[in-house]
Amino acid sequence: MKIAIFGFGAVGRGVARVLMDKERMSKVLGDYSVVAVADSRGSIVSESGVDLGEALRLKEVRGRLPEGMGVEEIIETLDFDVALELTPTNIETGEPGLTHIKMCLEKGSHVVTSNKGPLVVAYRELERLAKRNGVKLMFEATVGGAMPVIKLIKRNLAGNKVESIKGILNGTCNYILSRMEREKLSYRQILAEAKELGIAEANESYDVEGIDSAAKLVILANAVMGMDVRFGDVEVSGITEITPEAFEIALEKGYTIRLIAEVSENELKVGPRLVSLNNPLCVHGTLNAILIQTDLAGEVFVIGRGAGSIETASAVISDLVDIRACDGWV
Amino acid sequence: MKIAIFGFGAVGRGVARVLMDKERMSKVLGDYSVVAVADSRGSIVSESGVDLGEALRLKEVRGRLPEGMGVEEIIETLDFDVALELTPTNIETGEPGLTHIKMCLEKGSHVVTSNKGPLVVAYRELERLAKRNGVKLMFEATVGGAMPVIKLIKRNLAGNKVESIKGILNGTCNYILSRMEREKLSYRQILAEAKELGIAEANESYDVEGIDSAAKLVILANAVMGMDVRFGDVEVSGITEITPEAFEIALEKGYTIRLIAEVSENELKVGPRLVSLNNPLCVHGTLNAILIQTDLAGEVFVIGRGAGSIETASAVISDLVDIRACDGWV
Repeated sequence: MKIAIFGFGAVGRGVARVLMDKERMSKVLGDYSVVAVADSRGSIVSESGVDLGEALRLKEVRGRLPEGMGVEEIIETLDFDVALELTPTNIETGEPGLTHIKMCLEKGSHVVTSNKGPLVVAYRELERLAKRNGVKLMFEATVGGAMPVIKLIKRNLAGNKVESIKGILNGTCNYILSRMEREKLSYRQILAEAKELGIAEANESYDVEGIDSAAKLVILANAVMGMDVRFGDVEVSGITEITPEAFEIALEKGYTIRLIAEVSENELKVGPRLVSLNNPLCVHGTLNAILIQTDLAGEVFVIGRGAGSIETASAVISDLVDIRACDGWV
Repeated sequence: MKIAIFGFGAVGRGVARVLMDKERMSKVLGDYSVVAVADSRGSIVSESGVDLGEALRLKEVRGRLPEGMGVEEIIETLDFDVALELTPTNIETGEPGLTHIKMCLEKGSHVVTSNKGPLVVAYRELERLAKRNGVKLMFEATVGGAMPVIKLIKRNLAGNKVESIKGILNGTCNYILSRMEREKLSYRQILAEAKELGIAEANESYDVEGIDSAAKLVILANAVMGMDVRFGDVEVSGITEITPEAFEIALEKGYTIRLIAEVSENELKVGPRLVSLNNPLCVHGTLNAILIQTDLAGEVFVIGRGAGSIETASAVISDLVDIRACDGWV
């Protein structure tokens, strides 16, 4: 299996670190090599296999990969079986991931992506394109990081009708809310600390306004519930207006507040909700959690790490393994 | 896909009910037919497809299937691709399931089973037999019912090293303990009620003495942790000695008591443990729960319905789907 890695940020580097352990990974991936690694400014291409340790070292020392072919040129000229599209999410245009994914699917390469943008913007189109070209488009890492969700529903719960999904899909919001719950501090104060710790980004709006959760919800709705919805269809509100007093009132009655994303036949929304302290959805810190309501298996509940370089790499690897092993699946 | 069903108790009938919905199930299973249904006293065999509605009706009216070939004769004479071995568990001999499974694997049929016995008695032997004959032995329904566990670890967490597994694997015990926790009643009193409700069996010892949990733990240890252990290796204690007073003391400190099965490199045990009320393992009623500690994905936590006819059928179906779709998997 020849693998090309597009995007060499936290996720790309996490994947590279995991793929460096050839002895272990070849047990689940068979024979493989990484034939290209590219970031937004440069690349390393080698048909006999890129030295991933060296790529990581260069990226660390110089902050970028050496000058080389751009991603589009690599897609046009290099032979590979699977592209890992790990560039940053842009949910308005889907770019540059959208173009990368389309080009790869069109040339007959499988794609594994952690990039929500292309899926939010053009899920049905990409799904059709993959089907038409007889290749797979996999995206476990886009929702819930290392928490199994997409394949859990499509594979492990195959044959079930998914009636609804309800979950905590953003670790930054959950970190802020669970600290507000325990420490009675203001939103602003905890946000500032979360930024210092690197848990919230410098521009936090994407997380705290519910946009990231809504993007993930759109992916779930389209990919595992057979819906055809867009970002604009989601009713979104964030966590910026929640006060310590709101927590006080909730806690008195045995509840707390969490940012919940919910999808069912009649509903597609993200917003702060009261959650009973006994509810397994009441997770703490940066964890993600999801409750899947099905008709045969009943309710299935999963908690896991929604972010992190190696954790997200685990999801990417599970997609690669699926591509290798499960030809009968789409 | 030609399917033979051996065992027509709650699980077998649940599977039959689900497979009757041809329009829906053919979406995930492709073209299929059930060519044999057998219970311990009779069978219906039809190469053109058994009328499952009629089989269910006969079983309900007469309490048994009509006289016909026995399971071994069916295996010897009938052509089928997959056997569903759904006979009752006997963890001492593994029979009659063990013989059925061996015969099926030897003749080159895949096997999906909900029967813990054969796996507890002879996992490594059966695994080798399946491998040698190029067929799959699947057993999602043996642990956790509809709660995804086996394939969750082997597929969704592929590439991860599983460091430990800790969970609630017996719904009957959990029902009794969670009612003791909330209602301050004695073990005996709640057991009696659980029997009336059909949640505990007439002979409850298999559940309440931890035997069922230990059997499931042996399957997990061998199948997803690469160990080679037997039932006798598990340190087992049950829930029969737990008093309302023990709950009172635990609850004062923010804990409750649950029957926990745990496996790691150095440990293989089942027994009552203190569990924090905030711990997601602290589930109520007949639910099952499991915490999987891995090196890449971190901790992954799952809750689901550990029993039930249709719920267990969901697990059996997911194995059938896996057999159809994932040739590269073992």
